[in-house]
Amino acid sequence: MKKIAYLGLGIMGRGMAANLLKAGYPVTVWNRTADRCAPLVAQGAAQAQSVAEAVAGADVVMYCLSDDKAVDALVFGEAGVLAGVKAGQIVIDMTTIHPDTTRKEAAAYAAKGVKFLDAPVFGSKNEAANGGLWIVAGGERDLFDEVKPILEVLSETTHYMGGTAMGSSMKLVGNLVVAAQLEALGEALVMATKAGLNPEDVLGVLHVTDFKSPIFDGVGGALIERDFSTHFALKLMLKDANLISRFAQDLNVPLPASAATREVIKAAVNKGWGEENASAFIKQIEELAGVVVKKG
Amino acid sequence: MKKIAYLGLGIMGRGMAANLLKAGYPVTVWNRTADRCAPLVAQGAAQAQSVAEAVAGADVVMYCLSDDKAVDALVFGEAGVLAGVKAGQIVIDMTTIHPDTTRKEAAAYAAKGVKFLDAPVFGSKNEAANGGLWIVAGGERDLFDEVKPILEVLSETTHYMGGTAMGSSMKLVGNLVVAAQLEALGEALVMATKAGLNPEDVLGVLHVTDFKSPIFDGVGGALIERDFSTHFALKLMLKDANLISRFAQDLNVPLPASAATREVIKAAVNKGWGEENASAFIKQIEELAGVVVKKG
Amino acid sequence: MKKIAYLGLGIMGRGMAANLLKAGYPVTVWNRTADRCAPLVAQGAAQAQSVAEAVAGADVVMYCLSDDKAVDALVFGEAGVLAGVKAGQIVIDMTTIHPDTTRKEAAAYAAKGVKFLDAPVFGSKNEAANGGLWIVAGGERDLFDEVKPILEVLSETTHYMGGTAMGSSMKLVGNLVVAAQLEALGEALVMATKAGLNPEDVLGVLHVTDFKSPIFDGVGGALIERDFSTHFALKLMLKDANLISRFAQDLNVPLPASAATREVIKAAVNKGWGEENASAFIKQIEELAGVVVKKG
Amino acid sequence: MKKIAYLGLGIMGRGMAANLLKAGYPVTVWNRTADRCAPLVAQGAAQAQSVAEAVAGADVVMYCLSDDKAVDALVFGEAGVLAGVKAGQIVIDMTTIHPDTTRKEAAAYAAKGVKFLDAPVFGSKNEAANGGLWIVAGGERDLFDEVKPILEVLSETTHYMGGTAMGSSMKLVGNLVVAAQLEALGEALVMATKAGLNPEDVLGVLHVTDFKSPIFDGVGGALIERDFSTHFALKLMLKDANLISRFAQDLNVPLPASAATREVIKAAVNKGWGEENASAFIKQIEELAGVVVKKG
Repeated sequence: MKKIAYLGLGIMGRGMAANLLKAGYPVTVWNRTADRCAPLVAQGAAQAQSVAEAVAGADVVMYCLSDDKAVDALVFGEAGVLAGVKAGQIVIDMTTIHPDTTRKEAAAYAAKGVKFLDAPVFGSKNEAANGGLWIVAGGERDLFDEVKPILEVLSETTHYMGGTAMGSSMKLVGNLVVAAQLEALGEALVMATKAGLNPEDVLGVLHVTDFKSPIFDGVGGALIERDFSTHFALKLMLKDANLISRFAQDLNVPLPASAATREVIKAAVNKGWGEENASAFIKQIEELAGVVVKKG
Repeated sequence: MKKIAYLGLGIMGRGMAANLLKAGYPVTVWNRTADRCAPLVAQGAAQAQSVAEAVAGADVVMYCLSDDKAVDALVFGEAGVLAGVKAGQIVIDMTTIHPDTTRKEAAAYAAKGVKFLDAPVFGSKNEAANGGLWIVAGGERDLFDEVKPILEVLSETTHYMGGTAMGSSMKLVGNLVVAAQLEALGEALVMATKAGLNPEDVLGVLHVTDFKSPIFDGVGGALIERDFSTHFALKLMLKDANLISRFAQDLNVPLPASAATREVIKAAVNKGWGEENASAFIKQIEELAGVVVKKG
Repeated sequence: MKKIAYLGLGIMGRGMAANLLKAGYPVTVWNRTADRCAPLVAQGAAQAQSVAEAVAGADVVMYCLSDDKAVDALVFGEAGVLAGVKAGQIVIDMTTIHPDTTRKEAAAYAAKGVKFLDAPVFGSKNEAANGGLWIVAGGERDLFDEVKPILEVLSETTHYMGGTAMGSSMKLVGNLVVAAQLEALGEALVMATKAGLNPEDVLGVLHVTDFKSPIFDGVGGALIERDFSTHFALKLMLKDANLISRFAQDLNVPLPASAATREVIKAAVNKGWGEENASAFIKQIEELAGVVVKKG
Repeated sequence: MKKIAYLGLGIMGRGMAANLLKAGYPVTVWNRTADRCAPLVAQGAAQAQSVAEAVAGADVVMYCLSDDKAVDALVFGEAGVLAGVKAGQIVIDMTTIHPDTTRKEAAAYAAKGVKFLDAPVFGSKNEAANGGLWIVAGGERDLFDEVKPILEVLSETTHYMGGTAMGSSMKLVGNLVVAAQLEALGEALVMATKAGLNPEDVLGVLHVTDFKSPIFDGVGGALIERDFSTHFALKLMLKDANLISRFAQDLNVPLPASAATREVIKAAVNKGWGEENASAFIKQIEELAGVVVKKG
C-alpha cells in the first residue's frame, strides 16, 4: 500500500486523512498548528514535525487547503512541498483553486520529475468525514488510474476530467451550479413566503419534481430551522464566486445570472455573515425582500 | 366514479384525458378544433360539440390551457365554462396562470355555487402522457381531498398548498427554479466547453453530486445531441418568466438572478427559437460566449 | 387665447397651472380635494366644482396625474373627462403612463371627435414650478403645432416624437436613462467611498468630464448632504421602473442593466423609503456595500 | 521649464507629447517602435534610443500605456524606467491601471527617492490631441502642485484626488460611469427603435434634459450613422470593465448594474468587435433585441 503524507488538517483534511487511515493506508500527517494532529495520531497516523519530514518518506503527498494563497505558501514557500519532493513521487492537490495556479504547480513539479494530479472535491464537512466526496481530477490518465484506489476511499464517485487543470476547471464549473442553486432556492422561498405559501410545503415540492436537487433538501431544511452552523463557510463561497468570475474573465464567458449572484454573496458577507454557513447568503435575499423564511 | 369533462386537448390535456380514461373514469372531451378528439374517442371518451354540452353532465370540469388569455376566453367567453356550470359542480384549472387570474376565476365560480380548485402541474409532454406529473393545488382542503383520487391518476405526487391561488403561486415559484436550473446548466456547460472540458464528462459529474438534478440529465443530454424537439416550448417559458416577473412585482420581491435570466430568455426568443424546446434558451448563452456545446 | 381646464393639482399640476396663469391663459382648475385650488384661485384661476364643470367651457383640457390607475379613474370613471368632453375640444395627458393606456385614451377620445395629445414631461417639482420642464409629445402633428405655445409656457424644450403614444413611449425610454444614471451615480460613489476617495471630489470630476450630467450635480450634491426631501418620490420611480419592465416585455427587449437596477429599487422601497426622494434608492446600494456616502 | 521625457507614443501619448512641445517644454520622446517618434521630432522633440537615455536627462518622466502589463514591462522590465531613474526625479504614470499596480510602482520609486504621481486621464483620441483631457491625480499634494502647470497643458481640468493611487481609483470609478452610460444609451435606443420612435429624435431629447450627457451626443450620433471608427477600442473597454470588477472585488462592493454591463461587453468582444470603437458594444444590445438603431 502506498505511503501517504497528508498536509493540512482543516475541516476537509482531517476527514480525509482519517478515512485513509481507516482504509489501512500508512499516513503521516502535518499541520501548521501541530495540535490538530493528535486525533489522527490516536487513529494510527505518524506525525511529522515539518513539511520536509512528511514529504520525505511518502509515495503520495496530498493536501486540501483553503485557497490559492495557502497553496502558494505551502508549495512554493520556504521549506515547502516543492523544496522537499523528489523525482518519482506523486502529489495530489485537492484544493479549490484557479486553474492557473494548478498549472503553475504542475509545471514546477514536472520540472523536478514529480507526478502531479489536481483533484478537487465536491462536498463539505460531512462528505469528507464519511468518505462521500465527489472527486474531479485532471492530469495524466495513467497517474489517475494509479491513485484511483486512494481517491475512492474518500469519495462516492471519482471522475477523470482530462489533462492538467481539468479537475480545477470542473470544480469551478460545479461551484457555479451550487451558487446558482442556492440563489434559486433563496429567491423561490422568499417569493413563496411573501405570497403566503408555507416554506415547508414548498420544500416538499422541491423534494420530488424533476428540478429537485439534494442541496434544496439540505440547505432548505436548515434554513427554515434558521440553522446556519458552518459546514462550508460563506466567506469561502465568496472566494469561489470570485474565482469563477476570474475564470469566466480569462475565458471571456458572459455569465449573466452568476454575475448577479456574486453581487448578492458580496452583500451577504458585508452584513457580517462570512463565518456562517454558505446558506447564510439566502439571508441577504430575505433582506432585499424584507421577509424571513421560517418554519410554520 | 365521478364523471369528468376534459376541455382542451393540447400537448398536456390529451395525455391527462387519456390517463383518466385508462383509470376507468367516464370522460367527455371537447376541443376547439374538434379533430383532436378522435384519438381519445377511440380510447372510450365521449365527444361534446360545445363547452356547454361537455360541462352539462359532468361532476368535474378540468382544463389545462396555454396561458391566462386562453383561460379568460374559455371561462369568461361567450358560451364559456362559467355560463355552463351549475351549483355543486367542481372545476379544476390546471393551467399555469397568474394567481390573480386564479382568484378571478375562483370568485366567479363561487358566486354560482361552483367548487373550484387551482391545480397546475409540473412536468411536460412525457409526464402528462405517463401519469408522472407533480400537481400543486390551492382551494378548500375538503375539495382537494374529494378530488385527490382523480389527481393521483395523473401524477407522481399531489401537493395541497393552501387556499385559493396557492397552487398557482407555487407553480410560479417552481418555474423560477426551473429557469434557474436551465440557466445554471447553460452557463456551466458553456464555461466548461470554453475551458476545454468534455460536456459529456461534465454531465457525468452533474449526475451524481449533491447539486445534481434530473433536469440536468434530461436537458443536458438532449443539448449535447443538439436535440431541441419540443416538450415544452421556449415561448411558453418566456410567458412563464414574464408571469414570474409580474408576480414578483406584485409582491415587490427583488429577484436578482431570475431577472437576469429573463433577459436571456427574451433574447433567445428574438433569435427565432420560440417554437423549439425551452432548452433552446441555452443556445443564447452559447451565442454570448461564441461557442457551441456538443458531444465529443 | 385658449381657455384651459387644468385637472389635478399635485406636485406637478400646481406648478404647471400657475405658469399658465402667469402667461395670461384663462385657467379653470379642479382637484379631488378642493382646498388645493385656493392658491391658484388667488393667482386668478377659476375653480370648478366638478370635472364636468371644468371641462365644459374649455378649449383645452390638461392633466398630469400619478399613474395609469389615476388616469383611468379621471378619464373613464363616472362623471369623468370622457363623459364631459365634446367634439372639437382638445385633451392633453401629461402623465407618465404605459403607451397602451395612452392608446386606450386616444381611441376613446377619437370616438367622440375629441383631439388628443400625449405629452408627458421630464423634470420634477422645481422644473414644473419654474417652467423648465422638457415635454415629449405624441399625436397629430397639426394638433401639436396648435398647442405648442401652451406647452412652451411650461417647458424649456418641447419635442414632437410622432403619432399617438410616442410621447408616452419616449417618456419611458427617458426614465430608463434616469434610473441608469442614478444607479451609476450610486455605484460610483459607493465604490469611491470604500476606496478612500472623498465623495465631494468625485462629484467635482463628474461635474466636468464628457460623462457629466446635471443629474449627478443635483442628486449627488443632495446625497452627500444626506438630504432626501422629496422632489420625485421613490415609490413613483418604482412605478416607472415597473412600467419600463412591462414595456420592454411587450416589445420583448432585453435590458440587462435596467433589469438589475429595478431589483435595487424594489429593495429600497422594501426598506421603507418609498415616500422619500427617488435618490433614496442609492441608500440601498450603500446597504449592499455596508458604507455611507457623505460629505467630508 | 522642466525637461520632460515622454515614453510611449500610442493614440494618447503622441497627442500629449505634441501639446507639451507646443507649450514650449523641452521633450525627449521614446517609443518601442522608433518610427513613431518622427512626427514629434519634426515638432521639435529630441528622440532617445533607449528608456535609459530618455530618462537620464529628464526632470519629469511621463507615460500613458495600454494596461497593467505594459506598465509592468516598461517600469520593472530590464533596462526599464525604474532601473534608470535617480533620486529627485519625478515620474507621472497616466495609464489606467489597477490601484494595486499604482501602489507597487509608488513603493518602488519611493525606495529610490523618486517622486511619483498617478495621473490617469479621462477622454480619448480627440481630447488628447487638443489638450482637453480631464486628469485625476494621486500622490503628495506638493508634488501635484509642482507639476500642475504641466498637467494643465494637457487638460481641460486637473483634479487632486488624494494620496497615492487615488488617481487610479478615481479613474476606475469614472469608467464605471462611462460604461453605465453607454449601456443606458444602448438600452434606451434599442427600446425606442422597437417602440417605433426615431432614434434621432430620441437623441434630441437626451441632448437637453437634466439626465443628458455629452457622451450621449457623441456616441449616439456616431451610432445612428453606424460609425464605429476607433477613438477608444472596445477591447480596452473590456479591460477596464475587468479592472472595475477586480477593484470592486478587492473592496467587496456589490455593483448590480455594472456587473450586468460587463457581461454585455464580454459578449460584444466575442462577436469580434474588440478593435472597433467602444460604442460597438451597443451592437450587442441590438443583437439581444434583434433590431438595428439607425438614422431615419
